[in-house]
Amino acid sequence: MTDTKLSRHEVYRSAERLRGRVVETPLLPSADFSDRMGRTVLVKAENMQHGGSFKYRGALNALMSLSLDRRSRGVIAASSGNHGLALALAGEQLRVPVTVVLPEDAPLAKRRAIEQLGATVIPYDRREGGRDAVVQVEAHRHGLAVIPSAEHRAVITGAGTLALEMLRAAPNLRAILVPLGGGALAAGTALVGTGVEVIGVEPAVADDTHRSIREGRIVRIPAPLTIADGLDHTAPPDLTFKINRRLLTDVITVPEPAIADAMTYLWRHWGLKAEPSGAVALAGVVQAVERLPRGPVGVVLSGGNVDWHNYQSLLASSMGRTDPYDQPAVPVPH
Amino acid sequence: MTDTKLSRHEVYRSAERLRGRVVETPLLPSADFSDRMGRTVLVKAENMQHGGSFKYRGALNALMSLSLDRRSRGVIAASSGNHGLALALAGEQLRVPVTVVLPEDAPLAKRRAIEQLGATVIPYDRREGGRDAVVQVEAHRHGLAVIPSAEHRAVITGAGTLALEMLRAAPNLRAILVPLGGGALAAGTALVGTGVEVIGVEPAVADDTHRSIREGRIVRIPAPLTIADGLDHTAPPDLTFKINRRLLTDVITVPEPAIADAMTYLWRHWGLKAEPSGAVALAGVVQAVERLPRGPVGVVLSGGNVDWHNYQSLLASSMGRTDPYDQPAVPVPH
Repeated sequence: MTDTKLSRHEVYRSAERLRGRVVETPLLPSADFSDRMGRTVLVKAENMQHGGSFKYRGALNALMSLSLDRRSRGVIAASSGNHGLALALAGEQLRVPVTVVLPEDAPLAKRRAIEQLGATVIPYDRREGGRDAVVQVEAHRHGLAVIPSAEHRAVITGAGTLALEMLRAAPNLRAILVPLGGGALAAGTALVGTGVEVIGVEPAVADDTHRSIREGRIVRIPAPLTIADGLDHTAPPDLTFKINRRLLTDVITVPEPAIADAMTYLWRHWGLKAEPSGAVALAGVVQAVERLPRGPVGVVLSGGNVDWHNYQSLLASSMGRTDPYDQPAVPVPH
Repeated sequence: MTDTKLSRHEVYRSAERLRGRVVETPLLPSADFSDRMGRTVLVKAENMQHGGSFKYRGALNALMSLSLDRRSRGVIAASSGNHGLALALAGEQLRVPVTVVLPEDAPLAKRRAIEQLGATVIPYDRREGGRDAVVQVEAHRHGLAVIPSAEHRAVITGAGTLALEMLRAAPNLRAILVPLGGGALAAGTALVGTGVEVIGVEPAVADDTHRSIREGRIVRIPAPLTIADGLDHTAPPDLTFKINRRLLTDVITVPEPAIADAMTYLWRHWGLKAEPSGAVALAGVVQAVERLPRGPVGVVLSGGNVDWHNYQSLLASSMGRTDPYDQPAVPVPH
C-alpha cells in the first residue's frame, strides 16, 4: 500500500460523501485559557460526533467506499474502542453487517453498545494475542472486508474532513494539534493542513510514532500502559507513518498526569467532557506552548467516551495540580 | 415601570448592540437523547458565554444603554451569583466602575473573581436582610445606576438575544424551554418567541412564578432552598411577571433530584458541563415531555459556573437513578 494517490483532493471527496451524515462539530473558544496560553486556543468538540468520537467519519467513509456487493457481505475490524463502536454505528446506518473482534475483558457496557447496534462481537483472549489472525481467518471464511482503525485510505481521508471543517471555521489557524495513536487523524489532518503546522501529540509512554519519526524507520515499543487507551499502539502502521513522517511539523509527548489535567481544563474552561485520549492534544499545548506559533491554534478534542467512574477519579486527581486555574473559571472576552 | 414599549424590536436592537461582543453559542444536538424523548432536543450551550452564563448579555446591554455620564459614575447591583460576575466583566470591558453587594458568606472564589475584574465588593449579612436597602443607600450616596438582575428592560432584551440566535440556527423549533428565576430570560425569550411555545421551568421548591401566574397576582413564597441557587427567588418582579404572565405558554416545575439528573444527561449525552440552575430547563423536558409539542424543542443550558466539589457530588448522586441511560452513551444519527 502506498500513499502516492492520497492527497487533499481525496479528503475533499470524502467531505462531499459525508456531508449531512456527520455532525459538523463546533470549534469553541475559551478566552480565559487563551489568555493564559498567550494565544487563541480553539477546541474542535468532536466528542459531539455520532458515536462520541471522530472515528465515525473514517468508519462511515470506509463503508461508503465499498461496492454494494462488498457491503452486502459485510465488514470486520479488531478494536477495543471507539473504532469498533463507530463501525457498528455506520453499519447500522448503511445496513452493512459488521463484526467486531473485541478483547474478552472489554467493558461490558462497550460490548453491549456494539451489540445493540446489531453488530456481531467475536471475543478473543488478549493474553494469547493473535487478534489480527482472528480477523484474517474470519474475513477469509465469510468474505468480509477488513476495515483497520488507521491503515486504510478511506479511514484517513474521512478523519481528515475534521480538519477541513476547522480550517473553514477559522481560516487564520496557525497550527492544529491532534492526538496520535494509529495516526489516521494526524495523517488526514496533515493532508489538508498545508500552510498550517500540524502537530501530533502522544502519551510519553506510548511514543511509538515519535521514536519512529526520529529514527526514520518504524520502531516497535513494548505494549504501553496509558490512561489514553485509544493511543496505546506499539508501532505506527506503514501508510500513516509514511504520511506523518513527511507532513507532520512536530510530535509532542506528554506525561500521564498532564492528560488528566487537560481533561480538567476542558471541563473547567470549555465546559466539555473529554475521554483521556480526547484530551491529549490539549495536554500538548500546555506541555510545549513555547514550541507553538504565536497565532491561533486549533486543538482536536477527539472523543468523549468515558464512564463516570473513570472521569471523576481522573478529574479528582488533577484538581489539586491545576489549582492555579481556580474555580469558578471566568471566561473573559478578548 | 410598564412593559408597553417592550417588544421584539427592542431585542433586535439589543442584538445589534451586542454583536461581536457576546459569544454566539452553539445549539447542539444529541441524537441519542432525542430518540429517547421522541423529538429532537437541541441544547443552547450558554455555559460557553463570557462569564460562563447568559447573564453577560443583559449586563453588557444594560451598561451600553447608559449615557456616557452615567457610565462614568458607575453602577451597582446586588447578586450572589452570575449577574454580579457578568456585571463586573462587562464593567471591565467598558471601563465602567462596578459595585456588587455580596452576601458575607458567598464563596471566596466568587468574591475573588469579581474583585479580580476590578469591581468593588460590599459584603452584607444575609441574616439581617436589607440587601436592597444597602444598594439604594450606596447608589444614592455615589450617584450609581442600579442594575437589577431581572427587573430591567435592557437586561430582559439582552437575555432575549439568546433566543434570537436559537431561532436563527433552528427556525423549525416548536418550543423553547428556559429556566425561570427572576424571569428576565423567560421574558426576553417570550418577546421574540412568537410562533413557538416558550416554557419556563422552575424548581418545585422555588415555584414563585408558577404560583403567581396561576393565581393571577404576585405570590410571595418563603425563601426556598434549592440546588439551583440562581433560581431561589421568593417572588417574581413586576415587569417580568407582567410579560411572562401574558406570553409564556406553560410553566413546568421540577423536583430537586431531576435537576441533578439533568446535569448528568448534559454530561453524558452532550458532553457539556452545567451548573444546577443551568440544567433546570432540560429537567423540564424529562419531567413533562408529554406536555411538549412533537416537533424539535430548544433547551437553554443557561450557565456552567459550578465548582468541582458540587459538580461531582451531584452527578455521583444521580448516576444510579439515570442508569437506564447506560454508559458509554452512543449518540446515534437520526
